[in-house]
Amino acid sequence: MIVVKIGGGAGITAESYANFAEDLAALEMPVVLIHGGNAEFSQLSRDLGRPPRMVTNEKGRVSRYTDSETIDMMLMTYAGKVNKRIVAQLQAAGVNAVGLSAIDGRIATGRRKSVIRVIEDGKARVLRDDHAGTIEQVDTTLIRLLLDAGYLPVITPPALARAEGTPINVDGDKLSLELAIELGAEAIYFFSDTPGLLADKDDESTLIRQIDIADPETALESAQGRMKVKVESAIKAIERGVGRVVFSDARAEHPLQRALDGEGTVIERLSPGS
Amino acid sequence: MIVVKIGGGAGITAESYANFAEDLAALEMPVVLIHGGNAEFSQLSRDLGRPPRMVTNEKGRVSRYTDSETIDMMLMTYAGKVNKRIVAQLQAAGVNAVGLSAIDGRIATGRRKSVIRVIEDGKARVLRDDHAGTIEQVDTTLIRLLLDAGYLPVITPPALARAEGTPINVDGDKLSLELAIELGAEAIYFFSDTPGLLADKDDESTLIRQIDIADPETALESAQGRMKVKVESAIKAIERGVGRVVFSDARAEHPLQRALDGEGTVIERLSPGS
Repeated sequence: MIVVKIGGGAGITAESYANFAEDLAALEMPVVLIHGGNAEFSQLSRDLGRPPRMVTNEKGRVSRYTDSETIDMMLMTYAGKVNKRIVAQLQAAGVNAVGLSAIDGRIATGRRKSVIRVIEDGKARVLRDDHAGTIEQVDTTLIRLLLDAGYLPVITPPALARAEGTPINVDGDKLSLELAIELGAEAIYFFSDTPGLLADKDDESTLIRQIDIADPETALESAQGRMKVKVESAIKAIERGVGRVVFSDARAEHPLQRALDGEGTVIERLSPGS
Repeated sequence: MIVVKIGGGAGITAESYANFAEDLAALEMPVVLIHGGNAEFSQLSRDLGRPPRMVTNEKGRVSRYTDSETIDMMLMTYAGKVNKRIVAQLQAAGVNAVGLSAIDGRIATGRRKSVIRVIEDGKARVLRDDHAGTIEQVDTTLIRLLLDAGYLPVITPPALARAEGTPINVDGDKLSLELAIELGAEAIYFFSDTPGLLADKDDESTLIRQIDIADPETALESAQGRMKVKVESAIKAIERGVGRVVFSDARAEHPLQRALDGEGTVIERLSPGS
């Protein structure tokens, strides 16, 4: 069983989804597909005259402020348009797909951070009515039921706040990793609009082909910024039983077939080490 | 097993969904929930500056022209916002709900009417790129799988065009009836923002309490316009094995409990007749 995460970047189009559908139709292996929807979400936000409001917390981390209307726009794009367009593409390719949010069947539940502290114009402020959250538990019962019956589950944020029973915005990569760990996936493939992890994020020719987690210090040395977070998460997932973590390009033809053939960045335990 | 359809009218709010969730949590019977989303859809259409375009066909029937962007707005509201808001309300009430469109698992497939002939300003015109359609087949495999595992399926249009593999706009009442027939439901409950079927559609005191389908001519005599279509569909569903068809009020507290206790319009076979 493999987990495939397709990012929601602007470079990933309806044509990309068709390319994935074609590869998935040819694959004889159970797959759980997870996707984002960020570009569509940002577009809808702008079209509705409510562009994303980015806030910076006290540690300098930038995130999107997620009020109730923002969650509705996430539901519309992630769980509505993108999820069902992908499912329809898969159905058109002959794959019996079932689209779900992580709210459905309590796939992912967590804690809502209803109050956030941010720095705006140099001043500390408290923002309420936030609906972002963190995943505390994943439940793969529904996913296993669908896989065993031959369906391909297609899953997207939001998740469900345990206490409030309301949708919470959670990170799609984190959702994918937690599901891959809980499902004991032999591999997880992250597809985005880059060829993989890059030593220089502005230069696609600096693709890192392989990272051996037996030597995590060397592995982390070359990784910076957001890439460091990705490598750290990958190492943790492998330590918790996932076979390997691959970062590959969503924009090519046969994106999944290429990644299965070794294109992109492959993170795994190569040497017997530590 | 019962089928419950909640309409998408403007009178049906988040509070109504909470009322249904409370009743469903107390009910010890398998339920399939189907819902609309018309008010939310129209609102989004207006907010995006693309109000519904109504067209009249050669027989005088008025329908909404459904181009590709319109389908996307349907996916956003029906399958995104409304579906997941209902599922979250159910989860908050302790009901393990799973939200699906009729595209997922090929629940409903049909024929797309890509070209429609309409009358505009007294002239016949042909409109292309329409994504409305009619249901030709329902497949309850996925629904039964979920029911048997203790989940409550929450289903909404669109459905899937068999030939094109694209979403098609289908009638939610028709979807509900076809699923109720295929599932052999003991009853189907239609909830909208009226108390039931009214002899005079502008006067809620003219509620018709009971219609005996053993005497269909009398049954149809009092029914006019859209109501006639509803009664005819109900009669067909009962002839195809559904126990009874009930039209009841979505706006009250305990809407489902009231309907189960006999409020609204009950259509069934009372006398042994024809």
